[in-house]
Amino acid sequence: MTTAVPSVSDADAAVILARCDALARHSSLTEGIERTYLSAEHAAVNYRVAGWMTAAGLTTWQDAAGNQCARLSGRTRGLPALLLGSHLDTVRAAGRYDGILGVLVAITVAGRIAASGRPLPFALEIAAFGDEEGTRFGTTLLGSRAVAGTWLESWWDLRDEGGVSLREAFLAFGLDPAKVGDAARAPQELVGYLEAHIEQGPVLEEENRALGVVTGIAGARRFLLTVTGAAGHSGTPWSRRRDALAGAAECITTIERIARTEGLTATVGHLKVFPDAVNVIPGKVEFSLDLRAPDDADRDRGWTLIEAALTDICATRVLHLDSNQVHEAAAVACAPRLRAAIAAGIRSTEAVAARQGEVGSDSGAEEPTEPAPRELPSIAGHDAMAIAAITDVGMLFVRCAGGISHHPDESVTAADVALAVDALEAAVRALAAGYPAVSSA
Amino acid sequence: MTTAVPSVSDADAAVILARCDALARHSSLTEGIERTYLSAEHAAVNYRVAGWMTAAGLTTWQDAAGNQCARLSGRTRGLPALLLGSHLDTVRAAGRYDGILGVLVAITVAGRIAASGRPLPFALEIAAFGDEEGTRFGTTLLGSRAVAGTWLESWWDLRDEGGVSLREAFLAFGLDPAKVGDAARAPQELVGYLEAHIEQGPVLEEENRALGVVTGIAGARRFLLTVTGAAGHSGTPWSRRRDALAGAAECITTIERIARTEGLTATVGHLKVFPDAVNVIPGKVEFSLDLRAPDDADRDRGWTLIEAALTDICATRVLHLDSNQVHEAAAVACAPRLRAAIAAGIRSTEAVAARQGEVGSDSGAEEPTEPAPRELPSIAGHDAMAIAAITDVGMLFVRCAGGISHHPDESVTAADVALAVDALEAAVRALAAGYPAVSSA
Repeated sequence: MTTAVPSVSDADAAVILARCDALARHSSLTEGIERTYLSAEHAAVNYRVAGWMTAAGLTTWQDAAGNQCARLSGRTRGLPALLLGSHLDTVRAAGRYDGILGVLVAITVAGRIAASGRPLPFALEIAAFGDEEGTRFGTTLLGSRAVAGTWLESWWDLRDEGGVSLREAFLAFGLDPAKVGDAARAPQELVGYLEAHIEQGPVLEEENRALGVVTGIAGARRFLLTVTGAAGHSGTPWSRRRDALAGAAECITTIERIARTEGLTATVGHLKVFPDAVNVIPGKVEFSLDLRAPDDADRDRGWTLIEAALTDICATRVLHLDSNQVHEAAAVACAPRLRAAIAAGIRSTEAVAARQGEVGSDSGAEEPTEPAPRELPSIAGHDAMAIAAITDVGMLFVRCAGGISHHPDESVTAADVALAVDALEAAVRALAAGYPAVSSA
Repeated sequence: MTTAVPSVSDADAAVILARCDALARHSSLTEGIERTYLSAEHAAVNYRVAGWMTAAGLTTWQDAAGNQCARLSGRTRGLPALLLGSHLDTVRAAGRYDGILGVLVAITVAGRIAASGRPLPFALEIAAFGDEEGTRFGTTLLGSRAVAGTWLESWWDLRDEGGVSLREAFLAFGLDPAKVGDAARAPQELVGYLEAHIEQGPVLEEENRALGVVTGIAGARRFLLTVTGAAGHSGTPWSRRRDALAGAAECITTIERIARTEGLTATVGHLKVFPDAVNVIPGKVEFSLDLRAPDDADRDRGWTLIEAALTDICATRVLHLDSNQVHEAAAVACAPRLRAAIAAGIRSTEAVAARQGEVGSDSGAEEPTEPAPRELPSIAGHDAMAIAAITDVGMLFVRCAGGISHHPDESVTAADVALAVDALEAAVRALAAGYPAVSSA
């Protein structure tokens, strides 16, 4: 359905898209976008985003893990907070909406509530997480896991491609590694967590819907696989070859076949050949595997099948296979009360559109007959996965063009962004309406 | 057969192996060997090799392409030369014998002839080529093609990984690009070309032979293939994926299958993924293909089959395939007269061994009943391929351990090196014996 939107939302959407463009200019690449955790670009976007938070009427601070945070008090001081969030970091050669859009929509919603004169029965906080993608240190969700209090001591020795440890990066950013625990929030401080995010998939576009309610986030496991054979001259006869790349290629086609059959999502995104010369048989190949499924048991059964098949391939080729899990995230279900609030928020935008339609068509005052909001799982991981450790989470998906994400062609429409702001605001109001009165102003 | 060898040859072999060790220390890597064309390491090994050439009684010079050369006059001044050669450059993470052994065996043979008091009816020259592997500029045989006079003007703009052009590298090495033609030799200056080289294959070892006569060198074609799809988030569903690495993996397994079936040697040694991130579907993959066969027509038919299969794979996956040939070398046949000389050289070492056996066993004076020397093709490319453009070529293969080459484990035995020196010396003497007398001393 195509819907008309109120003009105030159009103006807000235009500001949000302009801010996405502005943040996209903070990149470590001369061509394309890359913004990693604790980089100079991270500091720069925190500064800009803090300015927008302040302008929206919020109190701001950078937390002990480098996340840019803000708070709008509720009817009284010291209330627990509904947290709105997403992330400001990116993959390499990224788009400009993944994560960023959610932060900017949240700021706009908070600004509307601050300006409304109708304070909430809870505080509203925003977290603009500094690391979700894991681009710099290979481990994802560092920002939101600091807030969730699930930071691991072993992470301090993670190193980026330049050899800088996470500990050193903290110090260089002006943060004290010993105080990372200060970023952690307690469950009793929080009412819940809502995140708006582009879908990164084709479902909403295919069904001609602007917005969707996320039912849950697929669990992911990531592995670093190493196939070792023997380097040798490219003239070596077949009988003497132990070609690690030929073996890895068979592994990759086999991963694809098993994952398709088993209904999993599997990606080999990183691959490196040693010694990587035209006239030398590869002696070693290292590659990543990212394995996802809405159900953890399906995903784990898939990995068992894949590992067995890869072991067979390597045994036949007299290659050595090494597999190390480098990441595991359990599937997370979105809380029914937050799903209901988001669904109510989406329905309210449809009701507005329907009423506007009445004015134009001069029709009767029938209830809008829009279908119920689309519910769908997220195959992509999100900060909500980490925050689920301390509070209920809910997510609002925004249609993106062609399902394209993690790519410069990532794209959303201003009309959809306007609807997302309206829907998230309405979801917050719906939660407020059902919230037990803690105290009166 | 295991053979005893004369002690003078043992001493020569020990010197040659010590020199291989000494040259291995000239590397651009802190771990492992890499010595590329026109590098500081190239200059250093030219200097050391020139010293050994001088000590052997030869006149030395560095030619206009950076090849280290030497000459021993024949019975009179100005005679055409029998050229002995191989190369001093290496692949990345190389062994210490590929190319180097041939240069050092040639110097020892020339030294013996210089010291023998029995001058040859032709001059003896040595060429230690500066580039055979193509490691730095991606194009092979630069050194020997300068000597063959088949240098291409288009090469000047080839660039190394650091962006340095071949022209700039010439200047930095102290060479004048305008004078590269001075390195070229005319056919009438040459009697032929002989090259000793490790086999880089398992045949001699499997048949328990130290040495072999090369019948010819396989032709090679090299391609740079690019598969382009679309980068995207690793959560993207199968229906929306255009994964360049999944496509490339299927291409690589298909290349292997076709090449095995068709009796070709095929190697994918280089592969690079873009953007190469764990959580991003690869949008582009670039990989090399090195295709070899003793017969050019077989090789070309194989490429036609491979290209058709890869085109089909990419079409099915909605990927774009780009293929560029970056190298082509026709198969080269070794000249019958030089094959005969090398075979005679090998037989002479067996005769010596047989005579020594007689002394020990006190047996009668029967002719040695050794089988004829093993004749075999070279699948690997060699400087002889380039030199074939200006004179007849012949090659002597030396057994290497496990057929391993282009790898730190490349290995030869002192006993085999001793036999190689004796056989090459005897081959030169055999050519001299059959050489028309040009003038008397």
